[in-house]
Amino acid sequence: MRIAYQGEPGAYSEAAALHFSDHADLVACEAFDDVFTAVAGGRATHGILPVENSIGGSIHRNYDLLMEHDLPIVGEVELPIRHHLLALPGTSIDAVQRIYSHPQALAQCERFLKGMPTVRVTPTYDTAGSAKLIKEQGLVDAAAIASERAAQVFGLETLQSDIQDFSDNITRFLVIARSSDPQAPADKTTLVFSLSNAPGALFKALSVFALRDIDLTKIESRPIRGRPWEYLFYVDIPINRQDLRCARALVHLGEFARTLRTLGSYPSARMRDAATKTEPA
Amino acid sequence: MRIAYQGEPGAYSEAAALHFSDHADLVACEAFDDVFTAVAGGRATHGILPVENSIGGSIHRNYDLLMEHDLPIVGEVELPIRHHLLALPGTSIDAVQRIYSHPQALAQCERFLKGMPTVRVTPTYDTAGSAKLIKEQGLVDAAAIASERAAQVFGLETLQSDIQDFSDNITRFLVIARSSDPQAPADKTTLVFSLSNAPGALFKALSVFALRDIDLTKIESRPIRGRPWEYLFYVDIPINRQDLRCARALVHLGEFARTLRTLGSYPSARMRDAATKTEPA
Repeated sequence: MRIAYQGEPGAYSEAAALHFSDHADLVACEAFDDVFTAVAGGRATHGILPVENSIGGSIHRNYDLLMEHDLPIVGEVELPIRHHLLALPGTSIDAVQRIYSHPQALAQCERFLKGMPTVRVTPTYDTAGSAKLIKEQGLVDAAAIASERAAQVFGLETLQSDIQDFSDNITRFLVIARSSDPQAPADKTTLVFSLSNAPGALFKALSVFALRDIDLTKIESRPIRGRPWEYLFYVDIPINRQDLRCARALVHLGEFARTLRTLGSYPSARMRDAATKTEPA
Repeated sequence: MRIAYQGEPGAYSEAAALHFSDHADLVACEAFDDVFTAVAGGRATHGILPVENSIGGSIHRNYDLLMEHDLPIVGEVELPIRHHLLALPGTSIDAVQRIYSHPQALAQCERFLKGMPTVRVTPTYDTAGSAKLIKEQGLVDAAAIASERAAQVFGLETLQSDIQDFSDNITRFLVIARSSDPQAPADKTTLVFSLSNAPGALFKALSVFALRDIDLTKIESRPIRGRPWEYLFYVDIPINRQDLRCARALVHLGEFARTLRTLGSYPSARMRDAATKTEPA
């Protein structure tokens, strides 16, 4: 297994890839598009993409890329985002005069940073890149805000753990592949559909699930730009696409959805974690 | 009218505030929380907050802040995000060796930047701050990616307009105030509710709108962390809360929603723009 991810070693996407398979080879990519190209072109067997963060929200760009490409979702990872303050071995927290990290990570550690008012905070391209900078330039008076994995990769020490303001900071990643095995176990299905501009269209669409006792674990509408009052809907349902109830619901939805696409049917993060825990030691 | 916004002069939030009222006084705030504090404490009469971007998705953090505070939504602004390459007057595009901007703006201009491979790209805290940097330090070989407004504020020239990769890059802002006038015109209402973990709960919730021919212009689910299978729902409906159909729907929803909060009833961006266009010259 070779998993493509966006970022560089030590990035949260790399940690998610290792969570998916801790013995996979990893392929670092510069942009999200490159993850798709790597999988489509065979440089990687799988790709991993953040699609949703519990503080930031959904990443529409990656849903767009899932729609543009024909690479099915085959898995899911939920990664708690834990930020740590990292420095060269020997640097004490009192010696830190500069802190580097990605602006989003800096924003997520705002309260912690307010407690260090004399420190100069400098935004960088990514969290792992900040750790790399400190290592490569041997900055003894600086620290980076990054993941535990970045500390390992760049040989830094953790000055303080879990400095994020919110403990419930979780990013959800989807795993894509060139093809999926319809016989593989799956308990979650991701759909994208659009509806015509008619009163009660969404209610009708959701009835195809409700009438078959299928719950929704995610629903999100997104306006289709240039077409006022038309929407795309992202929906996750906790059922295998091969399940007869699901198959019937999708045929039913197809009767009146303007477009309908199943992006994949796959084991949920919950199913994967349960399976891992019950594996013989 | 004094409008608080997050960022500094030249930021997109400032442009949104001016779009809301071009003769308002503006109060620049460091963080989103500070916008709420400014309005609650009387330093500003209104606050403006980005809640959704057509490429990035919803900004959950600002929904959380709307829930934490008791400041109603009184308006909405939809701002097309147009990035421009700005430099000191006299700098030609061939002379540019460094480009500064916020990482998100840099990512949204990826294709444009690929066409300038020899230029060194440096991330900064914000787009307006990049323009300020060039002006203050008199950088004759540098450019910033920022708004047209930033060019005005810092006396820079536009080397190239509309360098964003996607033309449909729109951010939706909500305007908050200390109180709202129930008699003011409104055609949109924003709700947040949670449902108990019962089969078909969402379908039942949406029936209160469908049965009264009320459409949804936004729906988004968000998992409640620590409570598996429980969700918050963000819903926008194109109707005034004072409308009898809406009032009845909300009473009906209250019968079975675990929590229900109306964040505000206000004139939609569409209604405001229509009103502005028909004003006598």
